[in-house]
Amino acid sequence: MSLGELDFIEALRAFATHPAARGLADDAAVLGDLVLTHDTIAEGVHFLPDDPPASVGWKLVAVNLSDLAAKGAEPLAALMSATICGDGVWERAFLSGVAAACEAFRLPLVGGDTIALPFGAPRVLGLTAIGRGGSVVPSRAGARPGDRLWLAGTLGDAAAGLALLKADARAEGMLVEAYRRPLPLLAAGQVLAPFAHAMMDISDGLLLDLARLIKASGCGARIDLDALPLTREFVGERGSGRAARLFAATGGDDYALLAALAPDLDPGLSLCLPSATIFGTIGTITAGDGIELFDAAGDVPLPERLGYEHHRPNPS
Amino acid sequence: MSLGELDFIEALRAFATHPAARGLADDAAVLGDLVLTHDTIAEGVHFLPDDPPASVGWKLVAVNLSDLAAKGAEPLAALMSATICGDGVWERAFLSGVAAACEAFRLPLVGGDTIALPFGAPRVLGLTAIGRGGSVVPSRAGARPGDRLWLAGTLGDAAAGLALLKADARAEGMLVEAYRRPLPLLAAGQVLAPFAHAMMDISDGLLLDLARLIKASGCGARIDLDALPLTREFVGERGSGRAARLFAATGGDDYALLAALAPDLDPGLSLCLPSATIFGTIGTITAGDGIELFDAAGDVPLPERLGYEHHRPNPS
Repeated sequence: MSLGELDFIEALRAFATHPAARGLADDAAVLGDLVLTHDTIAEGVHFLPDDPPASVGWKLVAVNLSDLAAKGAEPLAALMSATICGDGVWERAFLSGVAAACEAFRLPLVGGDTIALPFGAPRVLGLTAIGRGGSVVPSRAGARPGDRLWLAGTLGDAAAGLALLKADARAEGMLVEAYRRPLPLLAAGQVLAPFAHAMMDISDGLLLDLARLIKASGCGARIDLDALPLTREFVGERGSGRAARLFAATGGDDYALLAALAPDLDPGLSLCLPSATIFGTIGTITAGDGIELFDAAGDVPLPERLGYEHHRPNPS
Repeated sequence: MSLGELDFIEALRAFATHPAARGLADDAAVLGDLVLTHDTIAEGVHFLPDDPPASVGWKLVAVNLSDLAAKGAEPLAALMSATICGDGVWERAFLSGVAAACEAFRLPLVGGDTIALPFGAPRVLGLTAIGRGGSVVPSRAGARPGDRLWLAGTLGDAAAGLALLKADARAEGMLVEAYRRPLPLLAAGQVLAPFAHAMMDISDGLLLDLARLIKASGCGARIDLDALPLTREFVGERGSGRAARLFAATGGDDYALLAALAPDLDPGLSLCLPSATIFGTIGTITAGDGIELFDAAGDVPLPERLGYEHHRPNPS
């Protein structure tokens, strides 16, 4: 993040002091029972001109819904901001992806704005998603030493898919799909929220997002690399050794949910997660102030890069 | 509007079928008691690189709040999408204008997104404003033949200010301020909404916006040019003859409120508008299907250009 951006976000924080803003340090704003989030993506920054436009539309909706999932919120409506450059062919395909995701996740698109940009300007696409929170809307703060860390979803698929695409833009398959068409875990989020001391979605990499959670909660975490949930496709592509697991823990674009739950909570008894949800414990919250990693072979040094910091210079 | 844009908006309408979207033909979406609006502005399209950045920030907030005013809604919160290019100096000044408007209109900024764009890309700035509607949330449809058309606010100042700036980028004064720092008529909108058969804000020019209102309502309108509210500053700059009044009726950027009220309603008795609000009747709704203009000298032909169509290729 450049100095200009840091300055800007500092200045934003200085006046966005309403409690609903949660210090601009959470996945979403919480105003009464409303949960509000906005993500903007730009061509050349968050997606590439040769990415299939329908997948860009899908992803714009999905990443916003993942923020609602992290609050346990039910989606109510969305407003979209779209730019149009040139003949609009790309945008029509983009829109089909937006429509498919809105349909899949029952998100009514109720308004927004469409503006024409000069030819050659990068496309800038934004979505505001509005949801209704349940009885408890967890934040990133609130995890307590002794809590167990649970993960809904899997790690590494999207990052492995992106690596395949970087090697060959025509790559296909489940890993590429995971990168292009993430699935927000809305139902799991709604089930977990009332029990979660802290919860967030994993968008920039487990370790980077976990670092934010423990910083907000004022504690540390100890993670069992061997417990990270990997898919068969991921293991087929990258293996399941320590390097592969560190790759999965720092890859980003997972849109899994990370929740800190009380140690005596047995989710198998207490929670009724959708049957297809992959769900397991990956570690514990500690009284320390950083992340410790270990696997069957012993302690594992924390990698230098915890995730994709530059992907999200965003305040919310 | 290009074919690409028209196609795109047509495709948007095809799937934004939720009643809250109001056919993407209103100033805002209405979802339960929530009123939702989003406007995006781009450098080189809606503002110029040498416009004072603080005024761009003010205007972004004000135009969204004017959409809430047209629904009689009380502002609850906003989310902002901002791009950052280069060193962020422009953006810091922009943000000071956003903060000033949020402060002036008691609008908490609670979230959003900030993304870095490559150097040289046009800035794209968006705001989602969320408000709470009252017992009645008027739309553009609903005006009935016989209704009187009332206008809160004045016309022409902003267009006259823009003309001054085009002649001399260093121009100053009340008209330039009206262009740069419009004031959304939130209190007037809240007072008028329960009585309005139809209401909207005048952003693209009275005649163009009125044409939208009567199209949505399925009726016509007859406007007394002599009744248009002009400020002393406007008259000092452009006069008060027919040409000046047609300029004021097609200028745009007024952010006045246009309301169709029952003919037997006497706003002086029934309504309690803020004392500073300039408010008067400018015509009537007719059983026809177009706009008729007249002044003391007789009928006035409708000008070819009714307002700034290209300013707002937006669905909401």
